[in-house]
Amino acid sequence: MFDYTRISDLVKKEPSDQIVAAQGWVRTKRDGKTVSFLEVNDGSCLKGLQVVIDRAKISDDILAPVTTGASVVCRGRIVESAGGNQQVEMQAEEIILVGAAPVDTYPLQKKRHTLEFLREIAHLRPRTNLMGAVMRVRNTMAYAVHTFFQERGFVYVNTPLISTADAEGAGEQFHVTTLDLDHIPRTADGAVDYTKDFFGKMAKLTVSGQLEGETYAMALKNIYTFGPTFRAENSNTTRHLAEFWMIEPEMAFCDLEGNMQIAEEFLTYVLRTVLEKHEDDMNLFSQFVEPGLKDTLWQVIEAPFAHMTYTDAIAELSKNNNKFEYPVSWGSDMQSEHERFLTETVWKRPVIVTDYPKEIKAFYMKLNDDGKTVRGMDVLAPRLGEIIGGSEREARVDVLEERMRECNLNPENYWWYLDLRRFGTVPHAGFGLGFERAVRYVTGMQNIRDVIPFPRAVKSADF
Amino acid sequence: MFDYTRISDLVKKEPSDQIVAAQGWVRTKRDGKTVSFLEVNDGSCLKGLQVVIDRAKISDDILAPVTTGASVVCRGRIVESAGGNQQVEMQAEEIILVGAAPVDTYPLQKKRHTLEFLREIAHLRPRTNLMGAVMRVRNTMAYAVHTFFQERGFVYVNTPLISTADAEGAGEQFHVTTLDLDHIPRTADGAVDYTKDFFGKMAKLTVSGQLEGETYAMALKNIYTFGPTFRAENSNTTRHLAEFWMIEPEMAFCDLEGNMQIAEEFLTYVLRTVLEKHEDDMNLFSQFVEPGLKDTLWQVIEAPFAHMTYTDAIAELSKNNNKFEYPVSWGSDMQSEHERFLTETVWKRPVIVTDYPKEIKAFYMKLNDDGKTVRGMDVLAPRLGEIIGGSEREARVDVLEERMRECNLNPENYWWYLDLRRFGTVPHAGFGLGFERAVRYVTGMQNIRDVIPFPRAVKSADF
Repeated sequence: MFDYTRISDLVKKEPSDQIVAAQGWVRTKRDGKTVSFLEVNDGSCLKGLQVVIDRAKISDDILAPVTTGASVVCRGRIVESAGGNQQVEMQAEEIILVGAAPVDTYPLQKKRHTLEFLREIAHLRPRTNLMGAVMRVRNTMAYAVHTFFQERGFVYVNTPLISTADAEGAGEQFHVTTLDLDHIPRTADGAVDYTKDFFGKMAKLTVSGQLEGETYAMALKNIYTFGPTFRAENSNTTRHLAEFWMIEPEMAFCDLEGNMQIAEEFLTYVLRTVLEKHEDDMNLFSQFVEPGLKDTLWQVIEAPFAHMTYTDAIAELSKNNNKFEYPVSWGSDMQSEHERFLTETVWKRPVIVTDYPKEIKAFYMKLNDDGKTVRGMDVLAPRLGEIIGGSEREARVDVLEERMRECNLNPENYWWYLDLRRFGTVPHAGFGLGFERAVRYVTGMQNIRDVIPFPRAVKSADF
Repeated sequence: MFDYTRISDLVKKEPSDQIVAAQGWVRTKRDGKTVSFLEVNDGSCLKGLQVVIDRAKISDDILAPVTTGASVVCRGRIVESAGGNQQVEMQAEEIILVGAAPVDTYPLQKKRHTLEFLREIAHLRPRTNLMGAVMRVRNTMAYAVHTFFQERGFVYVNTPLISTADAEGAGEQFHVTTLDLDHIPRTADGAVDYTKDFFGKMAKLTVSGQLEGETYAMALKNIYTFGPTFRAENSNTTRHLAEFWMIEPEMAFCDLEGNMQIAEEFLTYVLRTVLEKHEDDMNLFSQFVEPGLKDTLWQVIEAPFAHMTYTDAIAELSKNNNKFEYPVSWGSDMQSEHERFLTETVWKRPVIVTDYPKEIKAFYMKLNDDGKTVRGMDVLAPRLGEIIGGSEREARVDVLEERMRECNLNPENYWWYLDLRRFGTVPHAGFGLGFERAVRYVTGMQNIRDVIPFPRAVKSADF
């Protein structure tokens, strides 16, 4: 029963007299006068295998329960296809029903479903063409991330998810506890007694692995993380998740120039891998999800990224302030409309903006000699805006401590992070890419909840 | 400053007149009469680069602060080494101190440190030979996991970490909340009002991605997860972590035989990759950490795994009950001593034990026709015992519901998991491997806290 060929291989096979077996789930069934057609899919590719059934050979009793969603084993010969939709099809010798999917209860009948409805049946939605394509592309992107860094000698580091260390305040955090919320233990003065909690202190879920990642870069030179991060922000948008995956490379003996170069190589590598490997899936997105998608992605790959400073970017944008909902001036945080203007109108290709005012960037970015700007960088992409954020890190212990105080952070809480500057400090740099945002960008899917298997958001963590 | 060659490449270079640059951290410095020797390491390999400094050429003022832990750039020629410890060394033309590591404060001086001490400086410990080796091997194992499955067409699936779904009760779970523990909101009847919490219900950190993984296997056929899982168990041992990474493949149209075959191929693939790629690191472990380590690993790779049923295993073990702390009889859960006896004494190679009593295994394992045993499997390895646990899953909806009730689980909470059996059910199987347990096994490290960058355990989640 389990000797089989993947359908992605079967549909590329030369016609032959050999009997082969396909296993999968019925996507559609059409009955002609003397023949029936099944489209059978095993998730290995967008197009299923067309199985042609001579009803003189296979009885209606066998075929009756073989409906949409049913699991089947089909045995037969691969022959040239008479229809125009595929090169080859299977001429069935035998159809074995493995598991039925009753027409009156199976939720995924042939008709179109809204993405909202599919989210409610997140356990079944990978069985649709669209979600199958998203998840294949997501898989290829994840492996391309690993391959890119591994081929360049980067070490994969699993930074921790739960931490009692004070974080940078990059976002609202979830608490992790084993305390009984019905009976919170309290100290003599009435405060929550965290010494009774599992970790002995208040513990939270991480918002970024960067700081811990830096500790490993200062030993292994080039590292990357690729793991889950969490934000407890009450933002019910199509761009935010409470639980998402982040990629954060960190390079020692690397400055902002090196950082920009690796970010560009990385992004184009991942995009090119998907476009080359997933022609059918990408055509689906480009046709039905986001017209012109493939062209914008090729544009990112083929043109070298432009570089400009924040100061130059603001000068350029100010000239066009009448076009924006939010006019900008030096010191403004850029909105998506500004980022898109720069990349789509000014440069017509991706652009890396550098050297932002320190007030709108994190404490760990290297302070420039002007004392006003920091060596941060944002990679802006057409159709999206920011896709990657990064910086050269502040490697001078005194400057870093001063920046912490300016940001109302207590340097004592960051003793281990400061140690990296006390002992064998080196120029180093890194960046972060939100994986789901990248998958959303590559697939053109509108809602980020549709590019992760089981999305977590406000009031929503079922399954 | 940033044009450099990795030290793992430099130490393999042919001697040449070309000037090359090495960047890294000083591990040791030895002063002879007219020359000094630095061992410089950049994490790319165990052995650093020996840099030979003619003190007539490079002044003592420059060299004085170049001490253990300092970061340096060394420029010079690769020459044949006079000493016996390496093939080549660098004859220095220039030494640039990048960041000092003051002798009086840098915690990692040349002397040996206990692993307990190193855990307290987890941010610096990857700079030691031993921890560097562990993390390189961990990295290679992680990428081998991905490569193994990707080459076989498995789709990487990120199952969720936070969930409001009832879990199988495989272990104690952490709560995830945004409620203010100082002011817990309460309903009219005094209970905790979880509708005010972020997810609107009580939410927990996952103990396994298997059930969600199965939903994707029923669409994409072969999938695997590789992500963090959590246990809030108060077990302060060398084998448990509160946060660890799990690998969980799941295959549709696959029975227990297929599952065993893939588990064996998988394990031997990962082990072989490490042994072939990390000769120096593995020699370090085999010499100083666990004598004979490499031999036991080759033993796992080279002999085909033995298979036996639980019933046969118990029969064999009962004959030797006088040798065990805990004598066994049919129905007993096996302890490590029994597992090791089977693999080390009875078979002298890995053995897969199958068909356990249903009472000691999870509800989702396929019930055998005898009504007493289930199609579970444990892969037992010499020197360890269980390394992989898996099963063929129960694919029949009525039998599965009955097993849930026997285990005091409410089938209604598992509606989506049962749906997989209602719609296009297929025989399917999978297994789980705790990644840190595997790294511990491969490196011979005694304490699991030393094979993950920042270990989380009872009262311990610093950094």
